[in-house]
Amino acid sequence: MSDDADADNTERTAPVRGKRPAQGEPVIDRAFSILHSFDPSHRHLGLNELSRRAGLPVSSTLRIARQLMSWGALERDEHGRFCIGVRLYELAASAPRGHGIRNVALPFLHDLAEATRQHVLLAVRDGHEAILLERISDHQAMPVLYHVGGRLPLHSTGVGLALLAFESSQFRESYLSRSLVRMPEQQPVDATQLRRLIAEIRREKSVIFRRRVPTPILSVAAPVWGADEQLAGAISVVVPDDGYDPRRLLPALQTSSKSLSRVLGAGLPAVPPGDE
Amino acid sequence: MSDDADADNTERTAPVRGKRPAQGEPVIDRAFSILHSFDPSHRHLGLNELSRRAGLPVSSTLRIARQLMSWGALERDEHGRFCIGVRLYELAASAPRGHGIRNVALPFLHDLAEATRQHVLLAVRDGHEAILLERISDHQAMPVLYHVGGRLPLHSTGVGLALLAFESSQFRESYLSRSLVRMPEQQPVDATQLRRLIAEIRREKSVIFRRRVPTPILSVAAPVWGADEQLAGAISVVVPDDGYDPRRLLPALQTSSKSLSRVLGAGLPAVPPGDE
Repeated sequence: MSDDADADNTERTAPVRGKRPAQGEPVIDRAFSILHSFDPSHRHLGLNELSRRAGLPVSSTLRIARQLMSWGALERDEHGRFCIGVRLYELAASAPRGHGIRNVALPFLHDLAEATRQHVLLAVRDGHEAILLERISDHQAMPVLYHVGGRLPLHSTGVGLALLAFESSQFRESYLSRSLVRMPEQQPVDATQLRRLIAEIRREKSVIFRRRVPTPILSVAAPVWGADEQLAGAISVVVPDDGYDPRRLLPALQTSSKSLSRVLGAGLPAVPPGDE
Repeated sequence: MSDDADADNTERTAPVRGKRPAQGEPVIDRAFSILHSFDPSHRHLGLNELSRRAGLPVSSTLRIARQLMSWGALERDEHGRFCIGVRLYELAASAPRGHGIRNVALPFLHDLAEATRQHVLLAVRDGHEAILLERISDHQAMPVLYHVGGRLPLHSTGVGLALLAFESSQFRESYLSRSLVRMPEQQPVDATQLRRLIAEIRREKSVIFRRRVPTPILSVAAPVWGADEQLAGAISVVVPDDGYDPRRLLPALQTSSKSLSRVLGAGLPAVPPGDE
């Protein structure tokens, strides 16, 4: 155990020093509200729009945005508008659940993409959703809904279902107890049907998932395991659902997920915490 | 022009309100010192190590780290140590100079990788260095020095030289006026020789770069242009320097860089700021 495994308790009982409220530094919340004002549909924001989306006065927005620029977290484009800085890449590259698995996975995804000539996806779970870490898409591949860095619903995507089905029963129950909406159709999910699908996925150790909207797609997905038999992520191949037999994709996908899991340390003696 | 093109001036002359020093919010600096304590060699840090690397007291480190966790910028691993959160990916995905070019470039890089079976790199400039946005590497490819999200010296890498050579003469002069060290050899750079190399790169519109250490490599690189004929980045193919004729790699690389530039809007009428 590390030196701060008990920090969750010490924090709560520590005396509040100075003038700061116990729940944290408001300026950090403001800084992240500013950063989260950007998304792939809002890559460039003028000061007024940024202030409005962050819900902050223009003066604080400008002051904090300029400081975020000094750290490279924001940049200004040639029209003077703010945008997320490329240096956040550098930070994100240190995320063990991100670049770690992504770098190891890339050659395997590459091979799968070469074999299928469509889309190959790698995702990890973040809370009740998945984050798409990588998508390798052929030039001629059909359009798809999700972009790299974007969030995917666990119950309406192939990779998402692979992540959901192999999570702990505690997580699955908490997830299924909420009212779920199928995306992008926005229709309520039949919980019994979803439970049956999850049971089948656990039995088969792979996902065969079809979606009709906006275009009929077939997704074949499998979980990826890391050291200590922890669920590390999931990979999928997404093809147009035009008569393709998913059983033709399964062997390649399962071989890739197994090789990738092995490289990530699954089925091997657990490594001590200091090593990677 | 946007609504805040003059903000650089207004900020300096605005009266300092409240108790904050004019140069910014110290807690933002502390938060980013904590985030930048992580790098690919330090992906997991216990509280004491994090506090030491960030140069902050343990109590502030814990308080700020917990708040960064609430934004998903930090996570805790199964041993209670802190690490960069995968949610920073989501933010980085909105960087126009990052995922924008990367997503457009990926199929082109993929094709190049398939043709060469070695390493294909995509980098953009950040200050006096380059950030490696993408590297597609074959399973059997030789080991290389730089990892995705990492920083590369402009004058000691193929992609770096492509970025340096096609920057403004003002940037080049400022860059060359500093004392430069060749990496990873740590030897001083002969500025006259570097100037000659840059002139040749500008003439040929491509880079042929060899490095002997740690293993002999050959890098062939070319710039990538975006809308308004702005330098958007550079791509390269890196192979072992074992008799490979660089002229065999150049046509594929130049075709890819031209196609990619065209898709990014080079040579086309400039798009209005609101469109992407």
